[in-house]
Amino acid sequence: MSVTDDKINEAIWIAKALFDRKMGTGTSGNISFVHDGRMYISGTGTCFGKLTENDFAEVSLSNGESIAGRPSKEVPLHLTVYRSKDCRAVIHIHSTYAVLWSCLRHENTTDCVPSYTPYLRMKAGSIGVVPYAPPGSAELNSNLHSAVDKSDAWLLANHGMIVHGKTLMDAFAAAEELEESCRIAWELRKCNDCVMI
Amino acid sequence: MSVTDDKINEAIWIAKALFDRKMGTGTSGNISFVHDGRMYISGTGTCFGKLTENDFAEVSLSNGESIAGRPSKEVPLHLTVYRSKDCRAVIHIHSTYAVLWSCLRHENTTDCVPSYTPYLRMKAGSIGVVPYAPPGSAELNSNLHSAVDKSDAWLLANHGMIVHGKTLMDAFAAAEELEESCRIAWELRKCNDCVMI
Amino acid sequence: MSVTDDKINEAIWIAKALFDRKMGTGTSGNISFVHDGRMYISGTGTCFGKLTENDFAEVSLSNGESIAGRPSKEVPLHLTVYRSKDCRAVIHIHSTYAVLWSCLRHENTTDCVPSYTPYLRMKAGSIGVVPYAPPGSAELNSNLHSAVDKSDAWLLANHGMIVHGKTLMDAFAAAEELEESCRIAWELRKCNDCVMI
Amino acid sequence: MSVTDDKINEAIWIAKALFDRKMGTGTSGNISFVHDGRMYISGTGTCFGKLTENDFAEVSLSNGESIAGRPSKEVPLHLTVYRSKDCRAVIHIHSTYAVLWSCLRHENTTDCVPSYTPYLRMKAGSIGVVPYAPPGSAELNSNLHSAVDKSDAWLLANHGMIVHGKTLMDAFAAAEELEESCRIAWELRKCNDCVMI
Repeated sequence: MSVTDDKINEAIWIAKALFDRKMGTGTSGNISFVHDGRMYISGTGTCFGKLTENDFAEVSLSNGESIAGRPSKEVPLHLTVYRSKDCRAVIHIHSTYAVLWSCLRHENTTDCVPSYTPYLRMKAGSIGVVPYAPPGSAELNSNLHSAVDKSDAWLLANHGMIVHGKTLMDAFAAAEELEESCRIAWELRKCNDCVMI
Repeated sequence: MSVTDDKINEAIWIAKALFDRKMGTGTSGNISFVHDGRMYISGTGTCFGKLTENDFAEVSLSNGESIAGRPSKEVPLHLTVYRSKDCRAVIHIHSTYAVLWSCLRHENTTDCVPSYTPYLRMKAGSIGVVPYAPPGSAELNSNLHSAVDKSDAWLLANHGMIVHGKTLMDAFAAAEELEESCRIAWELRKCNDCVMI
Repeated sequence: MSVTDDKINEAIWIAKALFDRKMGTGTSGNISFVHDGRMYISGTGTCFGKLTENDFAEVSLSNGESIAGRPSKEVPLHLTVYRSKDCRAVIHIHSTYAVLWSCLRHENTTDCVPSYTPYLRMKAGSIGVVPYAPPGSAELNSNLHSAVDKSDAWLLANHGMIVHGKTLMDAFAAAEELEESCRIAWELRKCNDCVMI
Repeated sequence: MSVTDDKINEAIWIAKALFDRKMGTGTSGNISFVHDGRMYISGTGTCFGKLTENDFAEVSLSNGESIAGRPSKEVPLHLTVYRSKDCRAVIHIHSTYAVLWSCLRHENTTDCVPSYTPYLRMKAGSIGVVPYAPPGSAELNSNLHSAVDKSDAWLLANHGMIVHGKTLMDAFAAAEELEESCRIAWELRKCNDCVMI
């Protein structure tokens, strides 16, 4: 089995873990990694619950052109992250509490999720808000582009999360921590006797 | 394996994905698709968690008569959707947040779920309310009949959701998006600082 | 495979479905069925997530004496149900929303869960409240005994649910419907614009 | 298969059950047991969803030194529990409701979770609060050390839970009961018509 096969299998495992535990829904979300100058990304219309090797498309990192398969329309978002951050894996999902938190007005748009535990900073970093634009639009990618250097991971307003990592498992840990942090933040939002770290 | 077998296997996978992730409960819900002039639908009293090929009944699309197996008593609802919409798959489930939202009084009965993300419109469309009548009753089907052309998918009041798609996976994506949208809508219902798209 | 093996396998499937979907926790809960004058019940200290055939104990229905295995200390509750109701399967679990609803003060102690959908009545019936007494105590069984003929299923106060059915799958459907109904009831408890059937 | 292999397999099963049911997230949490004077503990950076035998590290119980593998940085917390309690298994997780409850100010720091059911006392005992200090720090272990004899299990403030048991399954049952108890406590927190036991 090649290095790429290993990584594709890991991406499949992560996607299924997210789906089975209700952080992936229907055909939403996409997962990518880079290897040897190429980005491998789950294809358009695929379902995290049953990805196979054939569901991955290949895209050139340098020019963003499709090399094989049918890449997601959210490829530009992934490329924008790879070009800004020192990372090799990106996950974009519409998990419930990330979406919920992304629908709120946030005063602090570069660090919008409070730290009730130390793990959000450790695993995902500061969380920026990317203003709303239609999914797949050039405007959305432009909005991400403006926000990408100001934070470590992002909530796309009224849409979902984007996280990254040096490995697929790092990106997975960041995604899980961000979802849990949004959930805790939502539950404690009107609470007067809680403590931040 | 025949085309029908392929589709039955896909329906079984979807039903199990819904059950495992708590959108299907007990023996509630039914899933159908059309092929070659016939509707294939999960049988009465079957459980989404362990459907097999033998659990599907066949019903004539033209006259609604049973051809094989023991169809669900909710067959007329499925037929009403197939006759109104250009679709080939229908899912009816009692998922928690769809049920919850269906128990509320709605002023707008043709578009009752707010769009906090763009995905509800993209995957399921506008959501109508079908007034309550007992499950399996002619009155309930008559109520759906009156509502079917006014919206793209429906909440049966105090009961559950009905969605459809050109493929089984499209219907699945619609079901998941509607459930998530009802959940977000419920959570944000009393919230003053959230933003719709 | 004998009829008993079939039923034990079905009980194992149900217990695992409850556990996997977070309605069973740790080593709590027990499931039983009757066959040929004997009750088969999951043993003391067993876990719904990994029951095997060897985890079931056999108890005489007529005198309640253990025939084989180590029955749960909640055997008397199961026997009380079998002696009062025309049923062949009983499930007792500590699922979250049944427990939550069982911790509230209820004025109506023979029908304590509101009908937001028609399914609770159809699958489980009226839900009584059994006053609190320590798990496994004679007093708890005595409390159930006093309540058993007044309702179709029960919440043991500050403890969990007991449901039954003519088949194991009927009891499973009742358990799922009761949990969902308690959840809907809890969510809608302070809501002014919802409608009961 | 050796006794150790049996226990490692049980630990793997428990970790996966916690992960699959959303009580384990990303690479957080660790599980340990003692056998023959050694502590076996899931390694640093491992994921509860896919532990294998090779992911366990061995640590000397007497001097805390690593014998094999790469132990978690939370080894000292486990050792502190083994040295104070008569137990042979310890679980530390960041499950949602335990974390949520750990973020609240608690007046009673040796018994901070109310008993809505009798099971918390039976399975986990009294729950202490360990003041916040950074994960892996000597200060955190020192805080646990000061709290360990005053309660039976603990919430690490703004962090998660630590429970133990005479067997791995006992520790698992304690973890599940504590998570459920924190959830019930959270839901009933502002409720005026609920009853404790």
